Amino acid sequence: MPYSPSIQNLMDQFAKLPSIGPKTAERLVFYLLKQPKSELVKFGEAIEHIQEKITLCSCCNNFSESNPCAICGDPSRDNRIICVVAKPQDVSALEKTHSFGGLYHVLGGNINPLENLQLNEIKINSLMKRIKERQAVEIILALNPDMEGETTSLFLIKLLRQIPGLKISRLARGLPMGADLEYADEITLENALKGRSRI
Amino acid sequence: MPYSPSIQNLMDQFAKLPSIGPKTAERLVFYLLKQPKSELVKFGEAIEHIQEKITLCSCCNNFSESNPCAICGDPSRDNRIICVVAKPQDVSALEKTHSFGGLYHVLGGNINPLENLQLNEIKINSLMKRIKERQAVEIILALNPDMEGETTSLFLIKLLRQIPGLKISRLARGLPMGADLEYADEITLENALKGRSRI
Repeated sequence: MPYSPSIQNLMDQFAKLPSIGPKTAERLVFYLLKQPKSELVKFGEAIEHIQEKITLCSCCNNFSESNPCAICGDPSRDNRIICVVAKPQDVSALEKTHSFGGLYHVLGGNINPLENLQLNEIKINSLMKRIKERQAVEIILALNPDMEGETTSLFLIKLLRQIPGLKISRLARGLPMGADLEYADEITLENALKGRSRI
Repeated sequence: MPYSPSIQNLMDQFAKLPSIGPKTAERLVFYLLKQPKSELVKFGEAIEHIQEKITLCSCCNNFSESNPCAICGDPSRDNRIICVVAKPQDVSALEKTHSFGGLYHVLGGNINPLENLQLNEIKINSLMKRIKERQAVEIILALNPDMEGETTSLFLIKLLRQIPGLKISRLARGLPMGADLEYADEITLENALKGRSRI
């Protein structure tokens, strides 16, 4: 056995994490062995207690330390515009742009029959209920432009069209910043052409 | 602030680790949020207590839970052949080959004036003492074939040559398994030619 049991144990723990293989796990453990004890205690405790502090916002289904979360509880935000995303990370990505003043709704995934993620597992019912109760005027679909995201978007559009007067939009498609036309795929270019804007 | 404080705190802790950037840290935290509590406690405690269980072997300077370590304390190993490596990870890599029955000596680094790693910081004195006390017959230099490793090897060779009767060797240089001659660099090919073996 090349490593002592407690080193091997910590390596195994790290190697369970996504995107961390055995070599990275090894590097991380040897890094930690050289850190001050106080840092390790802080890190270890943060892991042990992360779930205790975090709850799901009963309004938007995002991870939060309060219920409702800081975004849903912010009176300065327009609660009649709801941006629908798949994951909590997507909320954070959009918030970093500082260009959206409405609320979010985290579905918790996409419709994906292959992975057995069925309709009742993602928060569509609570979205519909929220739209009716809060009299939302616009729903922005911010799902990934891939197979699962598109399937979910199509399904949601069908449902949302039944609500009279509701504006439904989705994030723009086109060339990302820094892209090279030569290497852009056809669908991206097609979307960029279709969605061209006058200047 | 896009994330709640305890999520952000754990992300910051992960992002301090080598080879983990902010995006990976984010992915890891959201993965952990979905794990069973017992897993988190095990992981957190393994991090907190890793240093308490680990000591340095007073003989070979490797990380170990006992002193001497399992390798140095193994009577079936030949204690007159010492393989000199830079890091504890190198011991593990060599042990995985199951083809070395001697002992190791972990220098703790290479001679590297640029990074201010000076001679007195790596365990050369204890190596020399060990060779004399245990009447070693062979020293295998297993340092990386790069600038720092070569510098350290040259320095050690100079010192070791002063010990009469001591055999000094180093790991073979040549083509690694799966290599493509077309893409091998010149020094590797030169080494492969120089070190060719009769068949």
